[in-house]
Amino acid sequence: MPEVLAYACDDKTAQFHPTTITRREPGPTEVYFDIVYAGICHSDIHTARGEWGSVLYPLVPGHELAGVVRQVGSEVTRFAVGDHVGVGCFVDSCGHCPECERGEEQFCSGEGGTIWTYNCVGRDGVPTAGGYSQGITVEQDYVCRIPDAIDLKVAAPLMCAGITLYSPLKRWGAGPGKRVAIVGMGGLGHVGVQIASALGAEVAVISHTRSKEADGRRFGAVEFHALSEPGTLKRLAKSFDLIVSTVSADSDLDALLGCLKVGGVLVDVGLPEHPTTFRLGSLVGTNRVLAGSNIGGIPQTQEMLDFCAEHGIAPQVEVISGDDITAAYDRVVNSQVRYRYVIDTATFAR
Amino acid sequence: MPEVLAYACDDKTAQFHPTTITRREPGPTEVYFDIVYAGICHSDIHTARGEWGSVLYPLVPGHELAGVVRQVGSEVTRFAVGDHVGVGCFVDSCGHCPECERGEEQFCSGEGGTIWTYNCVGRDGVPTAGGYSQGITVEQDYVCRIPDAIDLKVAAPLMCAGITLYSPLKRWGAGPGKRVAIVGMGGLGHVGVQIASALGAEVAVISHTRSKEADGRRFGAVEFHALSEPGTLKRLAKSFDLIVSTVSADSDLDALLGCLKVGGVLVDVGLPEHPTTFRLGSLVGTNRVLAGSNIGGIPQTQEMLDFCAEHGIAPQVEVISGDDITAAYDRVVNSQVRYRYVIDTATFAR
Repeated sequence: MPEVLAYACDDKTAQFHPTTITRREPGPTEVYFDIVYAGICHSDIHTARGEWGSVLYPLVPGHELAGVVRQVGSEVTRFAVGDHVGVGCFVDSCGHCPECERGEEQFCSGEGGTIWTYNCVGRDGVPTAGGYSQGITVEQDYVCRIPDAIDLKVAAPLMCAGITLYSPLKRWGAGPGKRVAIVGMGGLGHVGVQIASALGAEVAVISHTRSKEADGRRFGAVEFHALSEPGTLKRLAKSFDLIVSTVSADSDLDALLGCLKVGGVLVDVGLPEHPTTFRLGSLVGTNRVLAGSNIGGIPQTQEMLDFCAEHGIAPQVEVISGDDITAAYDRVVNSQVRYRYVIDTATFAR
Repeated sequence: MPEVLAYACDDKTAQFHPTTITRREPGPTEVYFDIVYAGICHSDIHTARGEWGSVLYPLVPGHELAGVVRQVGSEVTRFAVGDHVGVGCFVDSCGHCPECERGEEQFCSGEGGTIWTYNCVGRDGVPTAGGYSQGITVEQDYVCRIPDAIDLKVAAPLMCAGITLYSPLKRWGAGPGKRVAIVGMGGLGHVGVQIASALGAEVAVISHTRSKEADGRRFGAVEFHALSEPGTLKRLAKSFDLIVSTVSADSDLDALLGCLKVGGVLVDVGLPEHPTTFRLGSLVGTNRVLAGSNIGGIPQTQEMLDFCAEHGIAPQVEVISGDDITAAYDRVVNSQVRYRYVIDTATFAR
């Protein structure tokens, strides 16, 4: 059984320390890969700090894994030793419910449901442990191939941030002739701007201030709007075919819906802590749509990786060491990261 | 200029009395038709009672008109004297904005916008007057043909109630293999059950009590659920591909969204008076969709009429006289009508 170095926290204070965890020997259809980089997602922080319900401490978070295959089971056909691979938010599901059948394993309704990459219990009865570690054993069907054109350290954030934005942009038709706004330009938003732009849409950023305007334009936006400037949303009334909001903070939903054209779609991928109040009339009068979106399944995640490789889409990352994780959490919460922290697991030590 | 008998109210008390109004001589591309029946829609009541903003009194409401062509302009090609025709919520629009071009004249963004059938000012500068009258002059492009298979008195409610349900059911894919719930079985809902069923969907009614269950099943529902029975929405968790809510009363939106399958769509066509509070998480976690829908354009209204003729869809109506209108309003508000009042304009007198 491979023993690997990892970083874990033991309670809601989310103070990370080095540890070791044991991974299972790969079964016939499983892959073991060395995790080279792991992204830090805001969900890691919510979970580790106990803000999203019960936590299985000690917790090894991380659901943006990128690495290199070291060992494959006897029946593995899809991967070979040395392949570059990635794993996202889940590592297993039933495989034969309607949702799994159509490639939406994140919504598995079969026995046991979706097995999340961490803070979950695997089919082997062992709590799952995520990407803040040097290696992991995963069923081959839950592993994606990372194209050569994508550096492993920028591939990691694509496994959650990338698919979180790619999926709704595809479902709701971002493309040529469409005006698309991305609300919030953090870890998710800055990837969304690049993807929407590569899909051929005319992209606007709606951010709190103009501090990221130059970056936004570099990522492909042709417009940049600051909410801190009075009347911004009013000026943008009926402007967009599609808006993707990556902001978890409570916002004026009616005003944001007002920025959609007739029949336009606002997709929310953030999770505000509090209930939201708005007027159904903001939807009814104009055939507008408010939709949620939750990552994506394996087939679409692979499609997204291939799309990003083809179009040179790369999350902008700051590489940190294992000892930096605790402090990095605060910087993410304070929006100080440009734009995604990626942990280099080579820095891990006992 | 044709002078016609009508019923009007003069203030928010919405007391209707006989009157006469003047209609313009049809221009080259206009049609004048005798209104034989006019439906009473809940919107008429909200408007007449001043609940939806300013009102141009004296007000002649009515946007569910069915009648017989009496006179056509010299260039009218689409209709001839004697044709059965209907008019819905609007009588004119710019005709060349993007919305008009794609047949969504109810969202006209051109100069002057959509001209509503009543409580609006027409392009001739004269306040519009609706269906509670014996005749009207309308541009031929805003008139629909009522198929012979549909009795005029059941055709009238289709012009608003019918298209209000048909449009979202079509947009969101009600059909074979889909489980569709209609919430509320009043003037709108009872038509929705018939249309969804004719489209091939498996239809459930979600009503306050079981008092309309036999009717619901007669209209095509295969399931009937009563909100008055504890735990109903909980039992229906993840049941439906599509829910159309026709209820304007404030409801538990999170619980209703919980009745959708993954990726399912809840369409609201009612307009609650108060803001609605819910959790965006009810959408985000499961790719669910909350959409609004506002009547439909002329091409789709004609399609709906042809569909209803083909499938024998008929609103269930109670025919009343002009003198009954005032009392009928209270009965509509108290949900005592089965299921739509239609005014017989032959009862009008000076």
